[in-house]
Amino acid sequence: MSLLDTVLIWIDKNRSRWLGDLKHWLSIPSISAQPDHAPDVRAAAEWAHDYLRTIGMNVQTVETPRHPCLLATTPENLAPKDAPHILIYGHYDVQPPEPLDLWTTPPFTPTVRDDKLFARGASDDKGQAHCHLAALLAWKEINQGFPCRITVLLEGEEEIGSPNLMSVVDAHRDLLRTAKILLISDTNMFADGVPSITYGLRGLLGVEFALHGAKTDLHSGTYGGAVANPAHALCEIIAQLHDSAGRVNVPHFYDDVLALTNEERAAWKTLPHDDAKFAADLNLPALFGETGFSTLERKWARPTLEINGLTSGYQGAGSKTVLPNRASAKITCRLVPNQNADKIGDLLVAHLQSLVPQNRGLRFELISRTTGSPPAITPVDSPAMAAASDAITLAFGKKPILQREGGSIPVVAWFKEKLGVDSILLGFGLPDDRIHAPNEKLDLPYYYNGIKAAAATYDLLAERLKT
Amino acid sequence: MSLLDTVLIWIDKNRSRWLGDLKHWLSIPSISAQPDHAPDVRAAAEWAHDYLRTIGMNVQTVETPRHPCLLATTPENLAPKDAPHILIYGHYDVQPPEPLDLWTTPPFTPTVRDDKLFARGASDDKGQAHCHLAALLAWKEINQGFPCRITVLLEGEEEIGSPNLMSVVDAHRDLLRTAKILLISDTNMFADGVPSITYGLRGLLGVEFALHGAKTDLHSGTYGGAVANPAHALCEIIAQLHDSAGRVNVPHFYDDVLALTNEERAAWKTLPHDDAKFAADLNLPALFGETGFSTLERKWARPTLEINGLTSGYQGAGSKTVLPNRASAKITCRLVPNQNADKIGDLLVAHLQSLVPQNRGLRFELISRTTGSPPAITPVDSPAMAAASDAITLAFGKKPILQREGGSIPVVAWFKEKLGVDSILLGFGLPDDRIHAPNEKLDLPYYYNGIKAAAATYDLLAERLKT
Repeated sequence: MSLLDTVLIWIDKNRSRWLGDLKHWLSIPSISAQPDHAPDVRAAAEWAHDYLRTIGMNVQTVETPRHPCLLATTPENLAPKDAPHILIYGHYDVQPPEPLDLWTTPPFTPTVRDDKLFARGASDDKGQAHCHLAALLAWKEINQGFPCRITVLLEGEEEIGSPNLMSVVDAHRDLLRTAKILLISDTNMFADGVPSITYGLRGLLGVEFALHGAKTDLHSGTYGGAVANPAHALCEIIAQLHDSAGRVNVPHFYDDVLALTNEERAAWKTLPHDDAKFAADLNLPALFGETGFSTLERKWARPTLEINGLTSGYQGAGSKTVLPNRASAKITCRLVPNQNADKIGDLLVAHLQSLVPQNRGLRFELISRTTGSPPAITPVDSPAMAAASDAITLAFGKKPILQREGGSIPVVAWFKEKLGVDSILLGFGLPDDRIHAPNEKLDLPYYYNGIKAAAATYDLLAERLKT
Repeated sequence: MSLLDTVLIWIDKNRSRWLGDLKHWLSIPSISAQPDHAPDVRAAAEWAHDYLRTIGMNVQTVETPRHPCLLATTPENLAPKDAPHILIYGHYDVQPPEPLDLWTTPPFTPTVRDDKLFARGASDDKGQAHCHLAALLAWKEINQGFPCRITVLLEGEEEIGSPNLMSVVDAHRDLLRTAKILLISDTNMFADGVPSITYGLRGLLGVEFALHGAKTDLHSGTYGGAVANPAHALCEIIAQLHDSAGRVNVPHFYDDVLALTNEERAAWKTLPHDDAKFAADLNLPALFGETGFSTLERKWARPTLEINGLTSGYQGAGSKTVLPNRASAKITCRLVPNQNADKIGDLLVAHLQSLVPQNRGLRFELISRTTGSPPAITPVDSPAMAAASDAITLAFGKKPILQREGGSIPVVAWFKEKLGVDSILLGFGLPDDRIHAPNEKLDLPYYYNGIKAAAATYDLLAERLKT
């Protein structure tokens, strides 16, 4: 029996300990968005600080203008000299629990029902982050050391946009820059019973613009017919942003899009996705998207241009006979590898301006342009990815599928940019975990498997990434 | 010297009396929309009741569920037997005066500055309605009788949409149905120094619709690209509602439009309208409308389809990465003679439905459909119109121009429908009277001319419409 086998068995034997530890952490209402809960956020950091110190790691609480980060690293003498340095990122802050009356049991009274643990933060992200804390504890307990050098970075501001995380990274660059790979457990498995690794994310780009007409809203009787209506022109512009095949109709938008490989397309076809069920769950009679791509391809690997908000004229109930003097639209694009948000932003803004109908007396205003996170992709044929895949296979008894995600996880791209490090997203949650909503939960079997998967990943990475 | 000349001279001699009377009426804050002012609304009705009774008319206060109407008619023995019956409509309620701090002098302390009378209601409509009360008084004083049978109907709910007016009309149908013409003084002259009669109004039709997608708003990362965005489809529909020449692109929309006559087009070309000034006043670099028509033609005689409001997704500041599940638009059409609101409403709703993109899983909802007032037009070559024109010429020393108005005055169409009576709109206000706004005013020279114009109109109508 290998050392890893011993560790995995010991993890299984200590389930009640893990659950007890996690319940304790979850009972601290570390709601980063609510100033009243700042002491609780700190208490949750202190709990993790003590936990990591007990394991034998060197821990520091890194203060920021708001909520602290925790930075814990294995002592030099407790990992093999030639082993790689692995970085683990997670967050100990949680979303507000409101509305409280929709919770079956109180959000900060962790409760097990049907082998699921209900609490705010159970899945996002204390429960998943604790998989790593428990795995580290298991290694230390069984081996009096770790299979590789490991640094754990836990932040307390993820749910408020991580405003200070990159300053902390900058200040500890010397420590962090040697990391060979970044592990994050803050995502979902593709479906119940389908262990998954996420290797690609879409990026984000935001543009808000307005068309302006007369100096005030006008009476539609007195002026209607003689003065251009900016709402009409806005709609004309937006109607031209997609073609009839559902493609984004901005010149050169697709120029840099990384094409799906035949392997990806073939693999995704085998995933347990059913368009009819997907549509029915949304109460939609039909799906719609870019011609020539499947639903998963559209969500994961194709860029979008989406109207997030339209505003013009009277918004209240009933009728108001106004000829509005302003119409505006909020747009975000989901970008895919290898699109560049600055380049696409330039193309989009220029195109919007070019579409403004001429000679109507309307004025274009760019209200805002925000570059969110860039798209990210981690090579699937790397030794690190193979190690993670094998580790999950060991823990779950089933080979994980490789998926991408349609959303954006900014830290993935930030770490890539700051440290040049690729991320592997080992998600142990499920799509129905109700993160950010009442009755958030984590399925306990996947939580325990997650601890084993984390423990195995460190060991296999140590072997495959040996310097 | 004719009797009318004597009346007109006497009116001029008694200017201070008219001004004093009107100031008294204006000092009563008859704000129909504000329940606290209900006693003031009644007080203003009582003031007019006493005024009309003093003149020698038979007056009744007609109660309604909210504010009373006044109905005053000349006694049979005080008008020639063969004279026509003339109906005069006006309103004694006023708009709320807020914001009070923008008034130079208090809204219910009528004050003269620069030959203008400042007060809420000075132009809309107590001042203009009082032109008729004063004219009737003058006739009674000089002639001990009236040139024709006259009924005055004053309402106290015009500023809240006249909810009870037509019930009052129905209840007094026997009295009112013999009216040969309806005079209303509640409009503006075309410009300072340009006495005017308004003979046409546009009608109104409202349609609000929505497109619905999934059961909730969706995360634009998780779902974007795979699910239709109703905001996109809404814009596609709206973009098709006009053609590139600015014409409404709804089939058969223009079928029944009464064409402008060559006489109208020629006459309107001579009016003191300047496109450059019109645009500059609105802070617009250019005007825009249906190709082939002038600004006045577009405003007065061509129908419109106007977006009054657009709503979809996130409306607040900043960005929210939502794929909205709903997008809606409020539309009103201004209709012109001889368009029928029911027919155009049917055409529009059917066309909107036909434009909904198919196979995207979107659902069309007709939120509301409201038929406002029908368009109205009074023949300009009638004896009544000639009488009114000659009367204004006498009073103002200048022949009035004939104009239409782009807005809707519902009572005009309602009276036409209920009683079959045409309206002549004798407006003594000016476009800059700031009705509904702080510092409402009426130019006193036009007020005094208005009294004379009213007095002369009764006399000339009596002669021209003699039965």
